[in-house]
Order: sequence, then C-alpha cells, then structure tokens
Amino acid sequence: MAKYQIVIQRKIMMIMAADHGVVSEGVSGYPQEVTKQMAHNIASNGAGINALLSVSNSDFALVDVGISGDTTNDKLINRKIRNGTDNMLNGPAMSYDDAVKAIETGIDTAIEYIDKGYNMLGIGELGIGNTTASSAILYSYGDLNIDNVVGKGAGITEEALAHKKQVVKQSVERNNINTDDPIDVLSKVGGLEIGAMAGVILGAASRKVPIVLDGFISSAAALIAYKIAPLTKLYMIPSHLSKEQGHKWVMDMLGLKPYLNMNMGLGEGSGGAIGFSLIDMSVAMLNNMATFDGAGVSKSNH
Amino acid sequence: MAKYQIVIQRKIMMIMAADHGVVSEGVSGYPQEVTKQMAHNIASNGAGINALLSVSNSDFALVDVGISGDTTNDKLINRKIRNGTDNMLNGPAMSYDDAVKAIETGIDTAIEYIDKGYNMLGIGELGIGNTTASSAILYSYGDLNIDNVVGKGAGITEEALAHKKQVVKQSVERNNINTDDPIDVLSKVGGLEIGAMAGVILGAASRKVPIVLDGFISSAAALIAYKIAPLTKLYMIPSHLSKEQGHKWVMDMLGLKPYLNMNMGLGEGSGGAIGFSLIDMSVAMLNNMATFDGAGVSKSNH
Repeated sequence: MAKYQIVIQRKIMMIMAADHGVVSEGVSGYPQEVTKQMAHNIASNGAGINALLSVSNSDFALVDVGISGDTTNDKLINRKIRNGTDNMLNGPAMSYDDAVKAIETGIDTAIEYIDKGYNMLGIGELGIGNTTASSAILYSYGDLNIDNVVGKGAGITEEALAHKKQVVKQSVERNNINTDDPIDVLSKVGGLEIGAMAGVILGAASRKVPIVLDGFISSAAALIAYKIAPLTKLYMIPSHLSKEQGHKWVMDMLGLKPYLNMNMGLGEGSGGAIGFSLIDMSVAMLNNMATFDGAGVSKSNH
Repeated sequence: MAKYQIVIQRKIMMIMAADHGVVSEGVSGYPQEVTKQMAHNIASNGAGINALLSVSNSDFALVDVGISGDTTNDKLINRKIRNGTDNMLNGPAMSYDDAVKAIETGIDTAIEYIDKGYNMLGIGELGIGNTTASSAILYSYGDLNIDNVVGKGAGITEEALAHKKQVVKQSVERNNINTDDPIDVLSKVGGLEIGAMAGVILGAASRKVPIVLDGFISSAAALIAYKIAPLTKLYMIPSHLSKEQGHKWVMDMLGLKPYLNMNMGLGEGSGGAIGFSLIDMSVAMLNNMATFDGAGVSKSNH
C-alpha cells in the first residue's frame, strides 16, 4: 500500500448554460432554442453527459446563468443573469457588471457544492454560439491566425465557417478590448456560461479543490480564470483534446496537455466526465499499488 | 433511447507471462526474476493492473506460458510451454513448434473464457526483455530505422540503449527470418507471451469478440495476428499510446489510432484496463443517449 491515501469523496460536473446574441449572425449550425432544449434533456437524464456521469459515478449541477426565455425545471438551477448576451459584432456582449456577476455566480456555485462535500469538480457547458465567443476570447489574446482559432463548432458548412471567421475577427476589432483586464475581454466577446465556468475555477482553487476541464469552451473559461489568477492553473486538470481546432492552441497557451484523443466535440462536460474516470483509476493506482519493496520485487540493474 | 442495445457481459484482461533468453545480453533494466515476482504480485492483487481492473469492473486471467522456474500459485494458470526463450542473438528464440504451441495456448484460453461468458477481452503481458523481442519483430517487418524501433523499455541508460539496438539489429540479421511466415518471425525473434497474445486475438476474432490492445508488446502480438489473419484487425480496439517509442510505428503499420496519451509504459495490460472504462462509457452513450428527435431538439440549420 502507498504511504498516503487520496480520497475523492464526491465528484460533480458543473454545467453552465447560456445563450449568445451573436447567433443572429448565422455562426451556428443550430438555432438558439437548442440551448434550452438540451438543458431540459440533461435535466431529464437523456443526454450524453448523463450516460458518462453515470459510469464515472458522478453528479451534475446544471445552472442557467443566461438561457433566453423561460426555463423552469426542478433540475435546472436558476441563476439567470440575463436572457443571453447581446450580439458582440455590434458592441459588447454584456456589461462589465454582468461579466462580474457571471464570475461571482460560478464562484458561489463552486463553494456551495464544495461545502456539500464534493472535492473534485468539472466544468461543462451548453450554449449555442459559444464556440464563436470562445474563439473571440482566444483571438483577443493570442498572436494567432484566425484560421487556427475558429472551427466548425457543432457543425457548419465551409461557407458558414468563412463567415464565422469574419464575425470573430470583426467582433474583436470593433470592441476595443483591453486584454490587460480579463473581465473586459469576457464582457466584450465572452459569454455568461464562460464567465460562470471561470468563476467555478476561481472558487474551487480558492478551496484547493481540483477542476477537470472539458473541451474548447471550458478551456476559454480556464484562460480567463488564469488571466485573473495565474495560480488557478495548478488546480486545472485537462481531459480530452477536442476536435474543435482552437482547443489545441488554448491548451498550449495554458501549458496543459490533454490525455484523451477521441475526436469529441459534444460539450456538456463530456470529455471531463471521462476525465473523472481516468482520475479514479489514477487514484486507485496511487492508493493501492504495492511498491517494489513491498512486493519483494528485485531492484533495477542500473 | 437508442434503437439497439450493446451488452458487455463481462470483461477480462488476459495477461500472458514468459521470460526471454536475450536478457543475458543486458538489454533490460531489471533482472529476469522480476517476471516471476510481478506475476505473484498480480496474483495477490498488489499490482497497478489490479487497481485499474477493479475500477473498470473487470477480471483477469494470468497465464504462465513460459516463466523461468517454478511458479506455483493458485491464481497463476500453468500453461508453461518452456522455461523462457533462448537468446535470439545466438539463434532462434524458440522452435517453430513452440511458437505454434504459444499461439494455440492463446487461442484456447480466449475460447475458454468466451465460453464462460466474457465478451470483451484485453491482452496484457509480463516478461522482462519483451520490449527487445517486440522491437525485433517490428524491425523484421518494417523498413524502419533501428532508432525508431528500439526504446528504453522499463528503463535503461543511454549506453544500454545503444547496446540494445545492436542486439535487436543483429538478432534480426543473424536469424534468416522469412517474413512471409509470421510464425517464423515469432519463433526466431519473438516471445512465448507474444505468441500467446497473438493467439488470444485469433481466438477472440474467431468468435467475433473484440480485443482491447495495450501498449508496445501487445501491439507486436497484434501485428503477428494481423499477418496470420488480416481480418482480425476488425476486432482490435487500441487503448493508449505507450511512451515506448516503437509503439507509434506498430500502430501506424496496423492503421490504428490510440485514444489515450498518458505517457504510460507499465505493461500488464494497464492501458487496456483504462480502455475498458472508455468502452463502458462509449457503450453507455450509445445505449442511453436520447436522439435529437426523441428529446425534441431542433434540427440543424444546414
């Protein structure tokens, strides 16, 4: 047996959901109401993330921080800040105050569940249009080519992809972003669920609780959290490398290396839920594997 | 719910163990008796693979197909063909007949456990010196540079690595290998556990049961099985990419792409056991995820 024992009490995927005004530009393959429909699908245990969490023996908290319209559902925690963001192509996606509220909502939610006994958190999301916002965050910060930053999200045509790149580029150019202030970045071209996920990271790290990242959007949130408080990086655990091409670049910016290459791009925290299982297995090895000494195995020749 | 349901009844890791005469050339960082010691460690549930199988809710069958010396243990299935191979640097590692016996042992073991109700098999191994044999198999087949094929195994110095490359190169050159006959390759520069793992693949594929591969050595076995019966490839599921550098090349030769990058090189079936969990999660999604139609989610715009 190992000298020390790691105890993962309870694991929870914090799924933040919100809408994006920029979808009116035709950047997404799906209409805005899919955010709400998928929230209800997760609430009734019908989504991919539910199947994955069930196998990895984990719970979820599904939080509405800005879905457009009425979303009454017992399993959907109502922390709605506003009915989606504004179209960032025409000005800031949200006010500075709303960006702060989104982050605070994430912090509060993380602390609430840590107080309930969860000591392993994941972040996932729902939000039609949120790869566009994530690409804009990444494009704001990096010296990255627009072709590397923007991908097809949940699925769009080549023509729509070219248009999406223009929307991201122009949104960043028009918004006069101050990249020295991550909250300014979030308010101008981010999203409410992205702010809330950044908040979950800040809240969890403040309690020394690790947070498992998912794909591209959660990593854009991780970038915001890192820019606010660089030490949060020590609590981030990457999971999969998304098929959304911008993910590779944001992982590089954070210096993190995902463990899974499954060509996934589902969102919802799906890669993170698989990450939970990898962590369970790693912990089982660390806690239970005999040392060579303990097992009476001969030492190396070298 | 999905239209069809996939049922994984029981999963088992088939761990084949044997010794290698070539260790007398100083190609391994550990002495030969570690094979036997680690077999007893697995038998008493003290190894890494035991911890991983426990989390992935899977069993193991540990089979001695050629460990040197006495290995009496209730949990160790005795199918010993001989006390390890001969030193392949001086001639064939084993006779052609023994190579056939190793393969047949694997086939028989696979069928036996499939008949017991297992419908998902993995292959793992124990055998000090077996990265050297695996490298020699790969070097026999490929037009590959020796530097790409030979790695540090369980851990050797740079000097020992240079020597290991010479041993692999000369073993292949001196043995007059007929690569049109995979059993000739196996007998000249392979290993008993490698033959047995190839047999597990052949036996499982004959019953249409999938086999999860582990790292470099199990993939060398997969290459032998593929050369004997190319359609076996349809039943192979890759798991992790080993830190042993030859693994990338044998995966390329098989046209398989591992899902996990965890820089592991433990053997025992450890990567495959994590693969079992990935498969459980994939199956859970396929069986339980609502369709967009079923969940009342709007269709794509495109």
